[in-house]
Amino acid sequence: MTDRIYNFNPGPATLPLPTLEEAREALVNYKGSGMSILEISHRSALFEEVLQSAIARVKRLLGLDDRYVVLFMQGGASLQFALVPMNLASDAAPVDYVDTGTWSTKAIKEARILGKNVRVVASSEDKEFTYIPENIPINTDAAYLHITSNNTIRGTQYRSFPYAGSVPLVSDMSSDIFSRVFDPAPFGLIYAGAQKNVGPAGVTLVIVRKDMLERTPANLPTMLKYTTHAEKNSLYNTPPCFAIYMVDLMLKWLEEDIGGLAKMEAINREKAALLYDYMDSQDFYRGTARPDSRSWMNVTFRLPSADLEKKFIDEAQKAGLGGLKGHRSVGGCRASIYNAMPIQGVRALVEFMKDFATRNG
Amino acid sequence: MTDRIYNFNPGPATLPLPTLEEAREALVNYKGSGMSILEISHRSALFEEVLQSAIARVKRLLGLDDRYVVLFMQGGASLQFALVPMNLASDAAPVDYVDTGTWSTKAIKEARILGKNVRVVASSEDKEFTYIPENIPINTDAAYLHITSNNTIRGTQYRSFPYAGSVPLVSDMSSDIFSRVFDPAPFGLIYAGAQKNVGPAGVTLVIVRKDMLERTPANLPTMLKYTTHAEKNSLYNTPPCFAIYMVDLMLKWLEEDIGGLAKMEAINREKAALLYDYMDSQDFYRGTARPDSRSWMNVTFRLPSADLEKKFIDEAQKAGLGGLKGHRSVGGCRASIYNAMPIQGVRALVEFMKDFATRNG
Repeated sequence: MTDRIYNFNPGPATLPLPTLEEAREALVNYKGSGMSILEISHRSALFEEVLQSAIARVKRLLGLDDRYVVLFMQGGASLQFALVPMNLASDAAPVDYVDTGTWSTKAIKEARILGKNVRVVASSEDKEFTYIPENIPINTDAAYLHITSNNTIRGTQYRSFPYAGSVPLVSDMSSDIFSRVFDPAPFGLIYAGAQKNVGPAGVTLVIVRKDMLERTPANLPTMLKYTTHAEKNSLYNTPPCFAIYMVDLMLKWLEEDIGGLAKMEAINREKAALLYDYMDSQDFYRGTARPDSRSWMNVTFRLPSADLEKKFIDEAQKAGLGGLKGHRSVGGCRASIYNAMPIQGVRALVEFMKDFATRNG
Repeated sequence: MTDRIYNFNPGPATLPLPTLEEAREALVNYKGSGMSILEISHRSALFEEVLQSAIARVKRLLGLDDRYVVLFMQGGASLQFALVPMNLASDAAPVDYVDTGTWSTKAIKEARILGKNVRVVASSEDKEFTYIPENIPINTDAAYLHITSNNTIRGTQYRSFPYAGSVPLVSDMSSDIFSRVFDPAPFGLIYAGAQKNVGPAGVTLVIVRKDMLERTPANLPTMLKYTTHAEKNSLYNTPPCFAIYMVDLMLKWLEEDIGGLAKMEAINREKAALLYDYMDSQDFYRGTARPDSRSWMNVTFRLPSADLEKKFIDEAQKAGLGGLKGHRSVGGCRASIYNAMPIQGVRALVEFMKDFATRNG
């Protein structure tokens, strides 16, 4: 009917078809208002309803109690790399980071630009970031311990989070938030660019534990303070209204169509297992991440040669399986199988992989 | 057919119906890609085409030569209030501002938070910001002279820009860019939140003259440097793809349906004249801005009493004329008549005003 492909892009990524169809209906006349969802005032009752609904869904899905504030900001995770140390480490206290590659490395760089006392307490650089470090040392004097829960490029993901005691965990969860159940209690702050599991590009979800807000220095520019956005409920200035609307639709789909986070996790486990089990059963495709660190969101793999990889990606595209090229910094192939990728898409990919291996093995 | 109202909201504001209809078609399967416009990669050829088209349209419409770089950023004008002084005034040079209320005042506040040597060289605060100051003094030692070309709340607008000689002008043009022809040469930097004349909320247009980029200090956080976005052509990280797509559609409408900036200006002049000429012809409605400073974009007015204003706004809404409430900080009424408001809407508003005055005068 719609001739849609299975879209394995790493982000902006595939979205659930019902959310796209509902958004389409809102684009000229939203809820009989005579205005598009793009045209309604951010101070209107119509938008207030969208914003409150999105916040409530985030809280319900993640089991956040009143100690947490949910913010919608702009600038992506890349801006958060700077805002986290700016806001949460105003004094001379050291800030601890685990380096699992690319995004962690960038977060570390921004904290250093800001002159913070950065300690990289664990790293998997020794093996090209193909695994998640274990036994991460905890320093009780750290302002926070920063991790990146999932690495889209290396295809690695924390199976469980470090136990940091009284040190607040801060995590970039851009590529795996809402993919599985986890306990938010150890986290002082979580941030996520929306364009993987939360919605389209253009909005950043920030979840802050209220005690963290007490750390924001008074002399920061207004827009760079978490307190500004918390005090104004993300309405200090005009927010990215449409992106927030899409977040609400996407989380509605997760709650109502999927049935919540536990069910989503079961589906994601099943999807990832389909791919990894197949990869482990043969020799043509080789996964690049260490098995205990494999991501359920981004499955990275190599073929016997770069030529075959190119052929694989091209033929897959023609077969309606798009976005399988690995990140330009590492090459190879990658299947991003976020929440909105249906299991049928993963099955179709595995069948294609089998067929391609037979023809080229 | 679509039961759309005339939407006089100050932003997010009305958009041209053809752009909404085209966007609607892109929401499930964009250009036969099998993906929504919300799902395509920002690194794809499909998105590259959108981005290049939007940039080219900005340059053509404003007559920008190769000395200017066009950026699409996030965070709105409110973030630019801080980025301008951060990036353009790295040394001890003073920075000059004209205060025409609200947005100017906020821009001044952010420059002061950053510890800059701020000089308010002219202000209309003495008369509640109801006019644009004349004979603005120019200091040749200033790093820049900052103005706000249009004040949405007070309904004031510069008729012509100050002649600042070698001092680069910097202007917040959020609410009147693309509304009229102007000479860009004196401007070192122009910024505009999109949600009035450029597109939906969620993207900020920044136009920088290349010599300004040499001022950016090396030690700023990466996302806060104009140079980062200029060097990566607004693709340092995932941009707000859909909002940029809408900007391209809106500027396509301006170029192809309207016929360019001179024609847009003529229409805008006519729309504003309809309202102001009527207001000047009677005593029931009183314009709040000094006649020589009146905005063509935001027409602010009062009725004989606050009760009548409430009644006016409510009855207008029921008559399909929405968003006429003045800003909460000043009260009264306001008709925002940006580019996308058709002249038919303004005519309908004037007719309604006449009728309401007859019934309540």
